[in-house]
Amino acid sequence: MSAAHLRSVPPVGEPVSEAERLARVVLSCGVEPGDGTTSSLVAQLGAERALERSLSGAEGEPGEMLAARLAEVDPARQLDQAERCGIRFLVPGDPEWPPGLDQLDGAITDEGFGGTPPGLWVKGPMPLTELATSVAVVGSRAASAYGVEMTRAVCAHLALAGVPVVSGGALGIDFEAHDASLSADGVTAAVLACGVDRVYPANNRRLLHHLASEFAVVSEQPPGSAPTRPRFLARNRLIAAITSGTVVVEAALRSGALNTAGWAESLHRHVMCVPGPVTSYTSQGVNNFLREGRGTVVTHGAEVLELVGATGEHLVDPPRGERRARDDLTPTEAKVVEWVPVSEPALVESIARLSGLHLRTTEGALRRLRSKRFVELSDEGWRLAPDV
Amino acid sequence: MSAAHLRSVPPVGEPVSEAERLARVVLSCGVEPGDGTTSSLVAQLGAERALERSLSGAEGEPGEMLAARLAEVDPARQLDQAERCGIRFLVPGDPEWPPGLDQLDGAITDEGFGGTPPGLWVKGPMPLTELATSVAVVGSRAASAYGVEMTRAVCAHLALAGVPVVSGGALGIDFEAHDASLSADGVTAAVLACGVDRVYPANNRRLLHHLASEFAVVSEQPPGSAPTRPRFLARNRLIAAITSGTVVVEAALRSGALNTAGWAESLHRHVMCVPGPVTSYTSQGVNNFLREGRGTVVTHGAEVLELVGATGEHLVDPPRGERRARDDLTPTEAKVVEWVPVSEPALVESIARLSGLHLRTTEGALRRLRSKRFVELSDEGWRLAPDV
Repeated sequence: MSAAHLRSVPPVGEPVSEAERLARVVLSCGVEPGDGTTSSLVAQLGAERALERSLSGAEGEPGEMLAARLAEVDPARQLDQAERCGIRFLVPGDPEWPPGLDQLDGAITDEGFGGTPPGLWVKGPMPLTELATSVAVVGSRAASAYGVEMTRAVCAHLALAGVPVVSGGALGIDFEAHDASLSADGVTAAVLACGVDRVYPANNRRLLHHLASEFAVVSEQPPGSAPTRPRFLARNRLIAAITSGTVVVEAALRSGALNTAGWAESLHRHVMCVPGPVTSYTSQGVNNFLREGRGTVVTHGAEVLELVGATGEHLVDPPRGERRARDDLTPTEAKVVEWVPVSEPALVESIARLSGLHLRTTEGALRRLRSKRFVELSDEGWRLAPDV
Repeated sequence: MSAAHLRSVPPVGEPVSEAERLARVVLSCGVEPGDGTTSSLVAQLGAERALERSLSGAEGEPGEMLAARLAEVDPARQLDQAERCGIRFLVPGDPEWPPGLDQLDGAITDEGFGGTPPGLWVKGPMPLTELATSVAVVGSRAASAYGVEMTRAVCAHLALAGVPVVSGGALGIDFEAHDASLSADGVTAAVLACGVDRVYPANNRRLLHHLASEFAVVSEQPPGSAPTRPRFLARNRLIAAITSGTVVVEAALRSGALNTAGWAESLHRHVMCVPGPVTSYTSQGVNNFLREGRGTVVTHGAEVLELVGATGEHLVDPPRGERRARDDLTPTEAKVVEWVPVSEPALVESIARLSGLHLRTTEGALRRLRSKRFVELSDEGWRLAPDV
């Protein structure tokens, strides 16, 4: 059975009917983000019929309240106002619609939270198709110097590889992720818990204005909406769904970044964790997530690229530690030096016996090792040079 | 099939024959530690017959060299000398023999390295039976302040719980592990790569003498043996096999501590890793080990205890993050405060609509929230108090 039989969403490229689009505007304005019941209804029936059903409000008081809210919405006026502010509304089937969002149909918690948003409000010239391979970089608002350093290093690496970074526009790790991407001439987009015409937090005004004028700011909330805590949680699922993987740089035990990581996990995206000192408050959540056997440790932007890139595109050599002088010895020399005691002199006979090599071979190797300053010869025998 | 059918080692409690014990002394003195071929032979035939076979030296030149070395050993004299130095020789079947060591029969690398040692030389009054539930704590010689702090915290916790700590007597993490255990009135033993009558490194002379006079110092090497690099690698398998689990606190990419962790892993012991900053040289090996999906993150001694203790003996509450004032609100208050926008005032009607609660319920909750200083009321409506 193809996906088309399961969902009533037109495939990308097929034009979306005006009625369907307007119905989605109504749902976007009248339904709280993360309302899994409505999302399921839309996935089954399409937005028009789901809206009709919701407007009938036949399901008791909560249904009536929703119906009243939906009836208030004038979708054409909403679209008109948005357009005048340079804000566009995307729905499934639009070429710019991030296909990863459709996976949210299957991601609804036991409490009925989640699901695909009816649409996305976007401000900024960058088409969201540029986020096809992108990485979410998220973390604590109260970032430490370590978190800032790691965020900037990872994002700069992604920028140099041409991989866009998505984050949430908050203070701390989010800000550093956007800012480091910009500093490295990279591409970055913010997904907000409020309307894309609003600035929250106020300290990030310059950043958010820059993203909205040069890149993209995204929200499932209609313009003008205020941020609330449930809307932050709903927003987190979009960050996870739009991107190929989520990097959690720093997160305290109750950090929202772990919520994003949880969504990424349930969507089978890569969840990448930067471990930190267990003595650091802002690494406790990350370390504990890893302790639960979740996520993959990443220690460098190259490791992030390797995971999110096409298979074999960004292969990383496993870290090997620094090369040591010993690595350049011949196999015989290396074998002999192994058997020179670390703490005291030994006679060539003893070294030959332990190494299993002929006496003459051993002696020759020892002499060469001496000229390479690996061993020293004294009256009592051969010993390792200091610091070997 | 019971283990007795697979191995020719007498079960604990059955007295070991004098001939078997002497054969094991010869093998211990004449065979390099970690010689998997000899270990396998001993496991199949018992030490006496394995020694006979090895003494015949019928397998070409390496066999002849081994035969010559074995023929030189006078086991009764070795035992005698050792006894005069307060050193005892343990073999499988002795009540004090650590049963975990027998598992090394099945742990031989493709290069033929590993296997159960023919015996153990022990100096110190503590019976090794005290290590029945014990933890290896290992790591870099070049420990950082973070590594030292974590080692001491974990070992102090284990000491308070009465769990002995085993380590390798080296500088850095090993030293701190032994020293912190002693400082907390705990039990600790060192497993060395040289004879138990020797001191290496010299800086740890006081520590090693103290362990040998009050606790236990252990080696598979006969007294007098010098430490060599292969002997350190062989020693690592003993640390892993004797203990219930290995904690790696800090390790650079090529650290011997990761070798110990690898042995623990192949013996199905708990391998516990303390993550650290990815920017720290001495945490790179640990973080990379975790990145390979190996080991379990531990962030506290209590988590170590939980893993190595009897099931349910040392349960740890999963870390929860600090309690917040919000946790003490009634469900209605908690629901209402969620929907007060984080950045601006809102009218009670809007908050009631979003929360799905009656207007009167919402207003009552807001008033109580105000007295608890969660929200503020201004002319424009209700807003979150700063820092909520």
